Amino acid sequence: MTTLQFDIVAGDSAVRVGILQLPHGEVETPVFMPVGTAATVKAMLPENVAETGARIVLGNTYHLMLRPGAERISRLGGLRKFMNWPHNILTDSGGFQVMSLAGLRKLSEEGVRFRSHIDGSEHFLTPERSMEIQHLLGSNIQMVLDECAPFPASFDGIEKSLALSMRWAKRSKWAFRDAPGRHCFGIVQGGVYPDLRRKSAEELVAIGFDGYAVGGLAVGEGQAAMFDVIEATVPHLPGARPRYLMGVGKPDDIIGAALRGIDMFDCVLPTRSGRNGQAFTWKGPLNLRNAQHADDAAPIDRGCTCNCCRSYSRAYLHHVVRSGEIIASILLTWHNLTFFQDLLRAFRNAVRNQTVSQFSAEFLTNYRSSREEDPV
Amino acid sequence: MTTLQFDIVAGDSAVRVGILQLPHGEVETPVFMPVGTAATVKAMLPENVAETGARIVLGNTYHLMLRPGAERISRLGGLRKFMNWPHNILTDSGGFQVMSLAGLRKLSEEGVRFRSHIDGSEHFLTPERSMEIQHLLGSNIQMVLDECAPFPASFDGIEKSLALSMRWAKRSKWAFRDAPGRHCFGIVQGGVYPDLRRKSAEELVAIGFDGYAVGGLAVGEGQAAMFDVIEATVPHLPGARPRYLMGVGKPDDIIGAALRGIDMFDCVLPTRSGRNGQAFTWKGPLNLRNAQHADDAAPIDRGCTCNCCRSYSRAYLHHVVRSGEIIASILLTWHNLTFFQDLLRAFRNAVRNQTVSQFSAEFLTNYRSSREEDPV
Repeated sequence: MTTLQFDIVAGDSAVRVGILQLPHGEVETPVFMPVGTAATVKAMLPENVAETGARIVLGNTYHLMLRPGAERISRLGGLRKFMNWPHNILTDSGGFQVMSLAGLRKLSEEGVRFRSHIDGSEHFLTPERSMEIQHLLGSNIQMVLDECAPFPASFDGIEKSLALSMRWAKRSKWAFRDAPGRHCFGIVQGGVYPDLRRKSAEELVAIGFDGYAVGGLAVGEGQAAMFDVIEATVPHLPGARPRYLMGVGKPDDIIGAALRGIDMFDCVLPTRSGRNGQAFTWKGPLNLRNAQHADDAAPIDRGCTCNCCRSYSRAYLHHVVRSGEIIASILLTWHNLTFFQDLLRAFRNAVRNQTVSQFSAEFLTNYRSSREEDPV
Repeated sequence: MTTLQFDIVAGDSAVRVGILQLPHGEVETPVFMPVGTAATVKAMLPENVAETGARIVLGNTYHLMLRPGAERISRLGGLRKFMNWPHNILTDSGGFQVMSLAGLRKLSEEGVRFRSHIDGSEHFLTPERSMEIQHLLGSNIQMVLDECAPFPASFDGIEKSLALSMRWAKRSKWAFRDAPGRHCFGIVQGGVYPDLRRKSAEELVAIGFDGYAVGGLAVGEGQAAMFDVIEATVPHLPGARPRYLMGVGKPDDIIGAALRGIDMFDCVLPTRSGRNGQAFTWKGPLNLRNAQHADDAAPIDRGCTCNCCRSYSRAYLHHVVRSGEIIASILLTWHNLTFFQDLLRAFRNAVRNQTVSQFSAEFLTNYRSSREEDPV
């Protein structure tokens, strides 16, 4: 099998700083990966995404297979060239979006037949086709196709779904085309049931992957249950391989999960919140739409070095959010992506300095002191 | 009176290259000024507007007085600081937008009472208040308040409207606060009637302004009528002062007007078209939404040096336009603003090289060869 070099450079097997040796730039972990669903991190130029510190973004197989199409992107030189992103790309398998966005899904042993949410056209996604699409996109880290079970679901329902996901994981691994700079991750499923999570982890490890994701979380189970599942899963994954918590999350979710051994994260929160007028800060989220900001000459965060905080007041941001101007989305997304990168960098530094418990406790206290609203 | 230094450095009094000595960077004329209606050139970061070559943008008094308010912008350090634009600003008087956007207008000798299109609040704009607002914004070139008469309108109707505009021009000039780096332009009105245009020009010159705008055009009269009005107006304006054609226009409008002695232009066309998926090129406008671009690996224009043409294919732009992604607006606006700056730079070079007739004829031939659609 291909091997993704992953060097743990600080901490221990549980809470650690690592380096993913990816072909288009090293990536330090724990890492936050911005989401670039449709071949763009929404509202951002790729060079500005890189300015925030990101060296890997996520692309969505479901969206890209439907528009503009994987074969087209391949003809045009691959996703990195297509979207002018010179760094690394991780792609999901498409399974989650098929379940959440597509119409008229029909699941079988072979795969999932569905209709596009864009134009109603019919498509058939199998483990083999998902791996082929991700290969055509030029992904550096491909994810196996799995079934994303609904939440809540019974033990029996999750057990049955998990069995299918594990058969698909095996087929995905078989279909994965090994090549330099191409890697493949398995995805642990099993709902909120520790025994099923353990079973899933063990089966994936037996197949053998470059890294292991924890899937099926952040679907409504709540933070405590999510942390329980992570604690029930991580001990059954190889300490030397990266662990990826898919689709998570809020800053306090990320810190809690990183403390439990997670190395990689992705989430639409910083980008989507930015487009909704919300900014993340060390003192909690701010909603720039609120009238209290209308005359405030201060930036979002005096300590932040992003383009938004260097040059724009809260008063200006309030004005452009209220006016529905595109620059509001640009500046707040830029700030939020910078905040998420800074947060993970501070966490890594704390691991290096052996102060991660203190750092995390102080972060959570400060972050929850906000008088403003929850992330939107 | 204040004097705006304007040096004619090439050409003759009719078709010329000039330099406006403005406080925040020299501006070569003929110049195209991007429109920054609500304290932002839509979809652009200000540093990227400057990268296109622009050193002056237009701000809209009507929009800014309603939101966030002129006094607020003044408290926050003026419009340039508020919007992070270190270069020059020209502001209109608000009169045109009151006529085109506001509700329940009531015109009197004193001014115009209207309701905000944003929240229905009642406002009263007078020549004195318009000049005060523009002063509070920190405008480098303030425009007098005038009445924007409807088109078409009778000679008698325009004559009456013009008389009011000329009384308001006098009051505007009186209210203008002379200071270093602050300048004031009059606006010639008179519809499509040469005698009224001449009368208006002469009255404004008698008052004395730093520059003279031609207003009330590009309102449906057509290019030929517009050029006729310019030809009937320019001879009655001082050759040593800049001439500004407000709200114009398409590339061929601009070249035709510059050939007739116009020094300054502003228009929403490059920014609005960019948000609508349209790109300007030397061979005419392109609509990136069209299917013919879906597999085209070429940039919009191989000769263009803008960020969009350096790094993105027509296929990518087609994809992001179809997907409604913000980056489509960013990249196409960037390209279009670059095109308008490049067009005026090429015109200035042709004047310097005494080849402006040939340049303009070739430009119009090439520009009209497009098989695609009109600007939208």
